[in-house]
Amino acid sequence: MVVPTYLAVDVMGGDASPHLFVSATLLFLKHYPHARVTLFGDQAAIQAALTESKTALPQSLNRLTTVHCAQIVSPNEKPSSALRHSQQSSMWMSLLALAEGRADAVLSPGNTGALMAIARHLVGTVAGIERPAICKPMPTLGRCCYVLDLGANTAATAEQLEQFALMGAALVESEGISPALVGLLNVGQEAHKGTDLLRAASERLKACSRYRYAGYVEGDALYTGAVNVVVCDGFTGNIALKASEGLARYLAADMRRYFSTNYWRKLLGFGVKHFAKGWFKGLNPASYNGALLIGLKGVVVKSHGGADGAGFYAALKVALEQAERKPHSVLASWIERS
Amino acid sequence: MVVPTYLAVDVMGGDASPHLFVSATLLFLKHYPHARVTLFGDQAAIQAALTESKTALPQSLNRLTTVHCAQIVSPNEKPSSALRHSQQSSMWMSLLALAEGRADAVLSPGNTGALMAIARHLVGTVAGIERPAICKPMPTLGRCCYVLDLGANTAATAEQLEQFALMGAALVESEGISPALVGLLNVGQEAHKGTDLLRAASERLKACSRYRYAGYVEGDALYTGAVNVVVCDGFTGNIALKASEGLARYLAADMRRYFSTNYWRKLLGFGVKHFAKGWFKGLNPASYNGALLIGLKGVVVKSHGGADGAGFYAALKVALEQAERKPHSVLASWIERS
Repeated sequence: MVVPTYLAVDVMGGDASPHLFVSATLLFLKHYPHARVTLFGDQAAIQAALTESKTALPQSLNRLTTVHCAQIVSPNEKPSSALRHSQQSSMWMSLLALAEGRADAVLSPGNTGALMAIARHLVGTVAGIERPAICKPMPTLGRCCYVLDLGANTAATAEQLEQFALMGAALVESEGISPALVGLLNVGQEAHKGTDLLRAASERLKACSRYRYAGYVEGDALYTGAVNVVVCDGFTGNIALKASEGLARYLAADMRRYFSTNYWRKLLGFGVKHFAKGWFKGLNPASYNGALLIGLKGVVVKSHGGADGAGFYAALKVALEQAERKPHSVLASWIERS
Repeated sequence: MVVPTYLAVDVMGGDASPHLFVSATLLFLKHYPHARVTLFGDQAAIQAALTESKTALPQSLNRLTTVHCAQIVSPNEKPSSALRHSQQSSMWMSLLALAEGRADAVLSPGNTGALMAIARHLVGTVAGIERPAICKPMPTLGRCCYVLDLGANTAATAEQLEQFALMGAALVESEGISPALVGLLNVGQEAHKGTDLLRAASERLKACSRYRYAGYVEGDALYTGAVNVVVCDGFTGNIALKASEGLARYLAADMRRYFSTNYWRKLLGFGVKHFAKGWFKGLNPASYNGALLIGLKGVVVKSHGGADGAGFYAALKVALEQAERKPHSVLASWIERS
């Protein structure tokens, strides 16, 4: 018998909340029969979405429960304010379910800062980890590659970068790849490159025996698959990721423009769109939806606030996978034994 | 009568030196009859390339001269060492031609740090500019957009970021777009985002009347065309650019992989490659070759060291354009009158 996995899903605070998220969840339940989902949000809106949705199957609905939450954390609310004033929100209630052991993972499309603050408060960080980080897998043709931090910490000390490396390596280890190959993001590979802080962090990464340290890597390492983990502060990571998203969107738009300028190109564009759907979808950042808040004593996944149904579905899959891999347990056992 | 424009072209220090660069120059001279080029490098190697090249036309050769240089600045040489020990190098000699008014612009594929150091020494910075920056135009569907600094300065003070903004705006102004719209790169658009340094820089940018200040922009602004100038320190800019290059290369490789998996996809891939060459080429970072070293009292263009002939040709065009626009004169006149 397959052990069921319980997901606490906050469906509020996104652009498409909760309608598309509810139907994505129903489709997800249909495809993953061992998943159990509790939806947190406005009961009336969720019920309306459930009633309308055509993908609902009785056997899926058996594995779905709903918890009504009167509050929503707004996208612009400051983390400190959310922490004080949103105890009745779908975000808070879903994280509380994780903290109390009623769920194996949380997924939320809401305010990232608030999610991080409430998760730190309710779930807590793994002992030895100062601050959680935001982490995403990148598309590569080589090794699987996770980048962190992607924006939780505008600045990071050498010690924190060392912790990010360990967090990323635990994530890779929980996927069955051991030891992880870890690189530190810099403007060149030579030892003298970058700042004093990076050189200090590099010395620390060198000394760790849980992973292999590959030294400095440059920005292209996010997509080459040369390493399994790219470590950086949240400012640098956020800008590298958003620049990449901007380029992907530009290329997709440029492609549409190019393939509309004459009859032959239109025909070719039609062919590409219909017969190379898989490749074309790769240009859409939504297909890589689902970032991990890593360093916490549980699995918390952040969906892009602007995600559509397909994007939310992708994030649900990430939450399920991570709930089963439990990277936080690997991390905790490493720190405990060191 | 069209006034001739003189380019001093260092053909050494790149992966394809000097062969492909010499033939690219001959093609360039053929297409731009008002251009005059002096090649700096190893005379024997240049002569061999000239003899072999089939694109050479007698009327192009009339506008081409060669200066033999016994030294080459190696790609790994430290800037301080290049400054002391490379007075006979093709890099030094070409920059000296610019400094002495014998050329309107320099193009070099060599060591960026050495090029910057020697250019600062021989050509000098515009009065009021502490440090030059590396700047590139980005592909967008909206406004033309220049990003700086892309790696000359690992860190930058608020004053230096203010100077970068002015340098970028002068570049845009010299293209006939006035006033430029300038954004400061950050992890969010809200006033409280980022570091104290960025907030201090933002106050300075607000106060300048030479351009319109758009406030903070995020990483995707490199490709949206939302602003004409994106200002950042060289660490952030370098990583954003290299991450983008990595993504472009990944997408091109993934496309090749996708279009080779079955017969129909191969056929479609053939169609795309042959009938959508223009779009496909856009995935190649080489087609955007030619970065400006801006803030200097003259036009210095850096070609990617790994550029092929087509890439070097693109950089020659950038050098010619900038030699005619003279952004450093706009910058100097702004600073003088302020």
